[in-house]
Amino acid sequence: MSKILVFGHKNPDTDTITSAIVHAYLKQQLGVDAEAVRLGEINGETQFALDKFGFEAPRLVEKVSTETQQVMLVDHNEFQQSADDIRDVTILEVIDHHRIANFETADPLYFRVEPVGCTATILNKLFKEHNIDIPANIAGLMVSAIVSDTLLFKSPTCTEQDVAAAKELAKVAGIDVNEYGLAMLKAGADLSAKKTEDLLTLDAKEFTFGNYKAIVAQVNAVDVNDVLVRQSEVETLGQALIEKEQLGLYFFVITDILNNDSVAIALGEASEAAATAFQTTLKDNRVVLPGIVSRKKQIVPALTEGLQ
Amino acid sequence: MSKILVFGHKNPDTDTITSAIVHAYLKQQLGVDAEAVRLGEINGETQFALDKFGFEAPRLVEKVSTETQQVMLVDHNEFQQSADDIRDVTILEVIDHHRIANFETADPLYFRVEPVGCTATILNKLFKEHNIDIPANIAGLMVSAIVSDTLLFKSPTCTEQDVAAAKELAKVAGIDVNEYGLAMLKAGADLSAKKTEDLLTLDAKEFTFGNYKAIVAQVNAVDVNDVLVRQSEVETLGQALIEKEQLGLYFFVITDILNNDSVAIALGEASEAAATAFQTTLKDNRVVLPGIVSRKKQIVPALTEGLQ
Repeated sequence: MSKILVFGHKNPDTDTITSAIVHAYLKQQLGVDAEAVRLGEINGETQFALDKFGFEAPRLVEKVSTETQQVMLVDHNEFQQSADDIRDVTILEVIDHHRIANFETADPLYFRVEPVGCTATILNKLFKEHNIDIPANIAGLMVSAIVSDTLLFKSPTCTEQDVAAAKELAKVAGIDVNEYGLAMLKAGADLSAKKTEDLLTLDAKEFTFGNYKAIVAQVNAVDVNDVLVRQSEVETLGQALIEKEQLGLYFFVITDILNNDSVAIALGEASEAAATAFQTTLKDNRVVLPGIVSRKKQIVPALTEGLQ
Repeated sequence: MSKILVFGHKNPDTDTITSAIVHAYLKQQLGVDAEAVRLGEINGETQFALDKFGFEAPRLVEKVSTETQQVMLVDHNEFQQSADDIRDVTILEVIDHHRIANFETADPLYFRVEPVGCTATILNKLFKEHNIDIPANIAGLMVSAIVSDTLLFKSPTCTEQDVAAAKELAKVAGIDVNEYGLAMLKAGADLSAKKTEDLLTLDAKEFTFGNYKAIVAQVNAVDVNDVLVRQSEVETLGQALIEKEQLGLYFFVITDILNNDSVAIALGEASEAAATAFQTTLKDNRVVLPGIVSRKKQIVPALTEGLQ
């Protein structure tokens, strides 16, 4: 069998990067020539986790079909979030925890999606199903992914399975999950050194809501005002993106990781409808989102429903 | 939690009916109020299996959203093969072994698709993962599904996992898989009492190939000539269906279950292109398909590729 590339979504986050590494490791143990790669830049939080457990970032690829005909996806399934040439290769496996949309294959495949908080929680099951031991450094990456996706178990996406997996894996990794987790989240939430244009693409995903093409971006912050002071710059750059990408909505979510609330800057034709989707109104292009931290479980379903 | 309906595809076959019963049973053991239902008539093969293991056919439903807001799908995922009002309910789980297409949800769900020959083979894993024992009569249904979908292990869709699961389950059921399996297949292949119009819908699935809406129907026969003598009637009824459903292709496959070959009657605008998809030509509206028995693994991929 030729080399199989394993990768997560564009604008990679910690779950996407570590799950690519972890799943490629599992496959290698099963005799498959798998290599983890990435579709975008490593963020500060992910770099903190890679450094802590002694991993290099996976290799950056632009296109996958020039290298292989066979791929495995982790942490995403929607084609617009994947490699640009994803339709030109055969998808052998998908391990994910998101809604399913804009995905299609000609042949049957292994497609494992579960409604849990993190891909790593599913990968933990796969190791058990195949009777493969998890080394300490791989377990550390998996804990990092769970902490990141669940905001240290505080996100509504977090399930009992995620908490149990994180505790079990933290033991294997030899770390205190709360202490390590908070340090990792803070490393990711330190945006002071970032240019505003980088914040816009740090964790941005494209969706289709009704007739609108939309981008929902999210950044974590210890204090949302650290980001809100940059609002006019976000607006200028967001408007440019709307014109370039023909977007109906640009939705930039700033999440307070200590208080578990968010504020969004909403731009584009559908911005007022987006506020209405959360039973509120747009003020100064802002949508206040009390208690909302999860793009997947709270923001995308509300926009899917509201912009139909 | 309110009642959850569990069902397979329209024009149900043995795997779809039995997997609905089996998955509902598994869920009941896990404390879920699940009921197996069906979206169409029971065929002769499936009735043979239900009778053998002492089950009633699941209740026929026309719509699901009038009864429940929550459903689980087995043996299919493409919406056009599901309940007409599938978009009006929440899909909690999908257990399937087909390609993924025309499927979309607003929220994450449990979606377990594996490239094996039969849904029952995946269900067998789920029982193990949940530490639930399989009773003899449930095991008998699962063997029936595997025999049906793999044509007694002769279909190219059959994997080692299917063979192993069938052998293991046959022991639990206390049956000889080859003897029972052949009797069941023959019961299904006895089409003499069927009207031709019933043959057309017995196991028909709708697909989209390129710009063409298509129906691919399949019947099993001990002798394909028993069905080919009805060709002119199939043509008349098929043409009527093409007009009514605006089809680009009606592809009626007759599979010889003893010799593992097929002949298809191809009708519609794309019929010649369909023959070309199998590197052959249309003669007397027939496409000869030596060695081809699997709609999923052989016919649908060839048509998907050929009619792009």
